[in-house]
Amino acid sequence: MSNLVAPHGGGPLHPLLLPEYERVEEKKRAAKLKQVPMSSRELSDLLMLGMGAYTPLQGFMGEADWRGACADMTLASGLFWPIPITLSCSADLADEISEGDDVALCNGSGDIFGVLNVEEKYSIDKAFECHHVFHTDEDAHPGVQKVMAQGAVNLAGPVKVLDEDHYPETYKGLYLRPAETRALFESHGWSSVAAFQTRNPMHRSHEYLAKIAIEVCDGVMIHQTLGALKPGDIPAEVRVKAIDALVKNYFVEGSVIQAGYPIEMRYAGPREALLHALFRQNFGCSHQVVGRDHAGVGSYYGPFDAHHIFDTLEEGALKTLPLKIDITFFCEKCAGMATGKTCPHDESERLNISGTRLREMFANKEVVPPEFSRVEVLAILSEYYDGLD
Amino acid sequence: MSNLVAPHGGGPLHPLLLPEYERVEEKKRAAKLKQVPMSSRELSDLLMLGMGAYTPLQGFMGEADWRGACADMTLASGLFWPIPITLSCSADLADEISEGDDVALCNGSGDIFGVLNVEEKYSIDKAFECHHVFHTDEDAHPGVQKVMAQGAVNLAGPVKVLDEDHYPETYKGLYLRPAETRALFESHGWSSVAAFQTRNPMHRSHEYLAKIAIEVCDGVMIHQTLGALKPGDIPAEVRVKAIDALVKNYFVEGSVIQAGYPIEMRYAGPREALLHALFRQNFGCSHQVVGRDHAGVGSYYGPFDAHHIFDTLEEGALKTLPLKIDITFFCEKCAGMATGKTCPHDESERLNISGTRLREMFANKEVVPPEFSRVEVLAILSEYYDGLD
Repeated sequence: MSNLVAPHGGGPLHPLLLPEYERVEEKKRAAKLKQVPMSSRELSDLLMLGMGAYTPLQGFMGEADWRGACADMTLASGLFWPIPITLSCSADLADEISEGDDVALCNGSGDIFGVLNVEEKYSIDKAFECHHVFHTDEDAHPGVQKVMAQGAVNLAGPVKVLDEDHYPETYKGLYLRPAETRALFESHGWSSVAAFQTRNPMHRSHEYLAKIAIEVCDGVMIHQTLGALKPGDIPAEVRVKAIDALVKNYFVEGSVIQAGYPIEMRYAGPREALLHALFRQNFGCSHQVVGRDHAGVGSYYGPFDAHHIFDTLEEGALKTLPLKIDITFFCEKCAGMATGKTCPHDESERLNISGTRLREMFANKEVVPPEFSRVEVLAILSEYYDGLD
Repeated sequence: MSNLVAPHGGGPLHPLLLPEYERVEEKKRAAKLKQVPMSSRELSDLLMLGMGAYTPLQGFMGEADWRGACADMTLASGLFWPIPITLSCSADLADEISEGDDVALCNGSGDIFGVLNVEEKYSIDKAFECHHVFHTDEDAHPGVQKVMAQGAVNLAGPVKVLDEDHYPETYKGLYLRPAETRALFESHGWSSVAAFQTRNPMHRSHEYLAKIAIEVCDGVMIHQTLGALKPGDIPAEVRVKAIDALVKNYFVEGSVIQAGYPIEMRYAGPREALLHALFRQNFGCSHQVVGRDHAGVGSYYGPFDAHHIFDTLEEGALKTLPLKIDITFFCEKCAGMATGKTCPHDESERLNISGTRLREMFANKEVVPPEFSRVEVLAILSEYYDGLD
């Protein structure tokens, strides 16, 4: 029997991706169905449903689940769920669809990714959703923007996922489904595993954070968000190479696993930290590193809101526990790495380099101090930036 | 309601120290009772019973509890207890005592510390006890030695404690009973607290370990064993001053509490690690730092036996969880503090200074490297060693 944490809800993993041999036939059938275009967020949620990361959901949420997830983070079944997982379409398109219909779920280019059996059509109060999930309805918030841009009607019901996009191919060995990370953890003999979420190469502060996690768990999974990059982001293959160099030179062998997954950030801060812990439970992680302003954006959330929200949950709502870590940095006076919780010294003693400043340093060929990042990591980033010139 | 971990057994704390106003009368009465001398270990256990650290025990264990604690770490009541807490006397003295008698418990000088109501007299198989508790019956083991040196008969029953020895006076402000540490934790607003056991001044490796604990708990209690010193040990007042200097200069204010308590080590390795966690639960600690070869001696226990034994417990046996930490050190290649679990580098990169070597360095006025110990701590130790000349 596995010693890993059980999937959310206590049952088995429930991936909604059809077996490969059924996909061709089902895609042919789907091509004849009414086509419903998905936003990039909706597609990323479909892929998460496909790989089993949203176990035990069977598809996109109906109105009762949507309302419960928004209002008190609880589905109609009583199960904990902090953010609604929904699919929308325009009112015109919805008029052409009847409850009971199967519809094809497509990306912007019309490629089919899944089939939804429409059990329910309903319209929502978007401000209500934003108010609860994002604690704001300001249009400047990128998560609010996407909800406001949704179609007027939500379509709900069970889905079959037919395609995982380019991810398994592009990120071979890195793109790992929950059943696969669980098998890997077991082959390492791990029972407690901390997930560390990142979309950046890892500098010394990230190394330190991962090492705190290793102290209290059997190992750490460096879990990378794949998918659309923002301008200035390091491409995944460079990032993976940099993290490999760090792990090879500064971690004990067998204490780190790198993995990637296709989520699109909502920037819902505390609520998203809960969702991260929830799906990390499905990946088999007993702990989730929750940093300062985890999944936040701008100044919408207090720096520790994502820590505190875990204290408000009923016992057993989530099995995956937060590892609440403050901001990490090198401190001259500590003569080592430290966090806001363990270093009493003045800001002026601390080495902080913003992402913008770091890019500038590479552009100007300035020397990045080894207290900020390991030489092996810097060499790989240098090479990448040199190639951009 | 308190958010701290509940005392062992789930009931209230049960200190067996009589209220101050009852002690004079009871001591007068005890002076007329049969006098039973205690070993230093038995006295330390009586003091632990007095302060409530051994809640919910009511006194020294009878035969069924003794046997259960030895054989499967379970009292007759079903409660988890990893090491027997017993009182012995010679066969001759036992012959003069009847079940039902009250006897006075004295130290070697005849000072009265408590009264035992003898409910039971029984002789034990000492080799059986040693085999289970120490995993050896070799007389070279200091814990085995003390069991073998015990009287032939154990006296069991409820105790009243009448005196806490010199501790409250000598270690004013440091000597804290479980009810007091709990009140302190609550006044700090802590709900999770890690106990870090030490009888030494803290160097950087100990600082690092305490800081790992702070990362995952609200605060740390540096819990110092008071009582008899071994030759070469730093006196408690110097140790406290050195730890104060460390805490003041290198820890965030309000993240550390120093406390002391009167236990005598048994060197039972893994079983003693469990006992440490058990009574730390009574002190209000949610976590107990368990280092490499915790409470071990010589090479009787594997370096991680005290880690593994926690994995064999039934769920709920103890509420206080182990923080299992490997050996800690400064590593040149890591350019910082690390542990055996997070540093992959060669021994030759690591700075290890034994206690003996450190004393030698002070004696020869050699410079102790700041990677080993903070200058503020070294200044206090230097002053102490200079005073010895």
